Amino acid sequence: MPRPLRFAVFGAGFWARCQLAAWREVNGVTCVAIYNRTRPRAEALAAACGIPAVFDDPVALLEAVRPDFIDNITEVGGHLPLSLLCARHRVPCICQKPMAGSLADARRMVGAFQRAKTPFLVHENWRWQAPLRQLGVLLASEIVGTPLRARLTMVSGFDVFGNQPALRTLDHFILMDLGSHLLDVSRALFGEARTLACRTSHTLHHEVAGENLATLLLTMGPAATHVVIELGYTRTPLEPGRRELFPQTLAFVEGTNGSIELAPDCTIRVTTRRGTRTSRHAPLAYPWVDAAYALVQASIVPCNIDLLAALRGRRRAETTGSDNLKTMALVFAAYKSARTGRTIAFPS
Amino acid sequence: MPRPLRFAVFGAGFWARCQLAAWREVNGVTCVAIYNRTRPRAEALAAACGIPAVFDDPVALLEAVRPDFIDNITEVGGHLPLSLLCARHRVPCICQKPMAGSLADARRMVGAFQRAKTPFLVHENWRWQAPLRQLGVLLASEIVGTPLRARLTMVSGFDVFGNQPALRTLDHFILMDLGSHLLDVSRALFGEARTLACRTSHTLHHEVAGENLATLLLTMGPAATHVVIELGYTRTPLEPGRRELFPQTLAFVEGTNGSIELAPDCTIRVTTRRGTRTSRHAPLAYPWVDAAYALVQASIVPCNIDLLAALRGRRRAETTGSDNLKTMALVFAAYKSARTGRTIAFPS
Repeated sequence: MPRPLRFAVFGAGFWARCQLAAWREVNGVTCVAIYNRTRPRAEALAAACGIPAVFDDPVALLEAVRPDFIDNITEVGGHLPLSLLCARHRVPCICQKPMAGSLADARRMVGAFQRAKTPFLVHENWRWQAPLRQLGVLLASEIVGTPLRARLTMVSGFDVFGNQPALRTLDHFILMDLGSHLLDVSRALFGEARTLACRTSHTLHHEVAGENLATLLLTMGPAATHVVIELGYTRTPLEPGRRELFPQTLAFVEGTNGSIELAPDCTIRVTTRRGTRTSRHAPLAYPWVDAAYALVQASIVPCNIDLLAALRGRRRAETTGSDNLKTMALVFAAYKSARTGRTIAFPS
Repeated sequence: MPRPLRFAVFGAGFWARCQLAAWREVNGVTCVAIYNRTRPRAEALAAACGIPAVFDDPVALLEAVRPDFIDNITEVGGHLPLSLLCARHRVPCICQKPMAGSLADARRMVGAFQRAKTPFLVHENWRWQAPLRQLGVLLASEIVGTPLRARLTMVSGFDVFGNQPALRTLDHFILMDLGSHLLDVSRALFGEARTLACRTSHTLHHEVAGENLATLLLTMGPAATHVVIELGYTRTPLEPGRRELFPQTLAFVEGTNGSIELAPDCTIRVTTRRGTRTSRHAPLAYPWVDAAYALVQASIVPCNIDLLAALRGRRRAETTGSDNLKTMALVFAAYKSARTGRTIAFPS
């Protein structure tokens, strides 16, 4: 039995609370300290979660606690400075998605950890959702042959701003917040992007500073699969149980030998020449999850398991910093495409 | 009661047979002659439909019969020469879609009729399908507010080549055959295109000469609505009754105040803050329709009614030659985008 890893959390917001709960589902890891700029929020979370030490200075935390790794769960503005701080102290760091506010910042962060020969990972959990994971297994099995086209849809009228008010003020909103997730999923499922075209709209002028609707058309991977990604937080009334499914991603994949539908209620429908087979892939019902976010929050556990295995040197994590640079490159390419009206091509 | 219009048909293939049946559902019009290059096919159709005169020379037909108009139901290769022939004889002409094999040809045809001051119309029936028509009514009512995004899907494993073997040999296949329909529908529903990006694939190398999968992303109309169009004849097994719905177009529209789903079985689901309302818009069950094509073939009747009203000078047809030039411009822009990998912008 290896010794437990001692980690500290940076940040004390909505996601820090549930990522801490998810860490408690994983054996061999314990949270020993928390830093937050606003100390009372950190104290409240520490009291709720039994974290023994609270700091409002991250340097003091690193020097006093000497944790095995940091889980940096701050807003995007905190990612660059706190990551560089960890790199300077050669403390392995998990950075919340989206990794950075610009591709230059993201590259700087990854480069700093490479030079420090210190692990740098990204907490990108969307690809760990049970139905999307099963979709990946089915695609890898080639039961539907080569994927010719895929559509990923994450559109909801849900009030995401209630729990995460900072989202209202971002100049770059839905492509950063949700696009980073779905572009990461599309890479995991279909391979690296060859081309990308994106259109965005900003429809909630009084509520949100950034774009809140985005539609992407990519070609990806060895099969040059056509991939459509539909993102929307527009408050559009959608039919409950059929179209209003926050936070479930719907998907439809057409392959050479069959098709796969990721349908409501975490159901997957696989159709081949032999007929249609249906299965359900609901999230595990952890007692600490917010019911409105169950699918997302439950996926934090397998995400953390993968990251922890990498921190123990047992395997390469799926969402390393350098892997996630490719996701961030797509996010910023999407903004560029929307701004210029052009299609972006990626060298293979 | 105005005198009946006497028309002649050019062509004697799959669609000539059912367009003739559809004309018999319309009062005040009678088919007096048929031309086909291969005379026996014309004779067989004439016998079946009670057409009194058969020609294997279109000039002879025009001079002998002096019809009020021509319904040109030949393959695309016959559209330019036969249209120009009608223009020279100042005989109004309905041309089958797709109008022409190139944008230059299409412009030449429209120009010839303009100079001859003779009506030139296009038989483009997809927009006359009952569910798509109702979708147009709903959008015009603004019950869901401004359309922010729309997706039109026409994907099927149906063997379209069995009834139309000529489709196998076309270098330009699905964008011409099906794309012309759906781009026309998208114009009717959302307005003229502002930008267009398209990707195509050719997956049935042994069966079809041209591309058989296409995915488009456009912005259209005053709201710059994001419009995704998915086209596929790839023989991919799809779930019957849920995804395999030939020839039904599925659609999903997100508006500022609600959403509209064009669902299987010609059902429309409208969701607003007041809930979801469902209605069904099945095609009229004409005895002559081929059950596999019921939705398309029934739409020929209202299409013909609109064209006939225009030929009688009562109103402007929806699908005039000059209107359809805009649809053809999108078809050829889609080929250009797919070939160059670029997004095409249209001057407003």
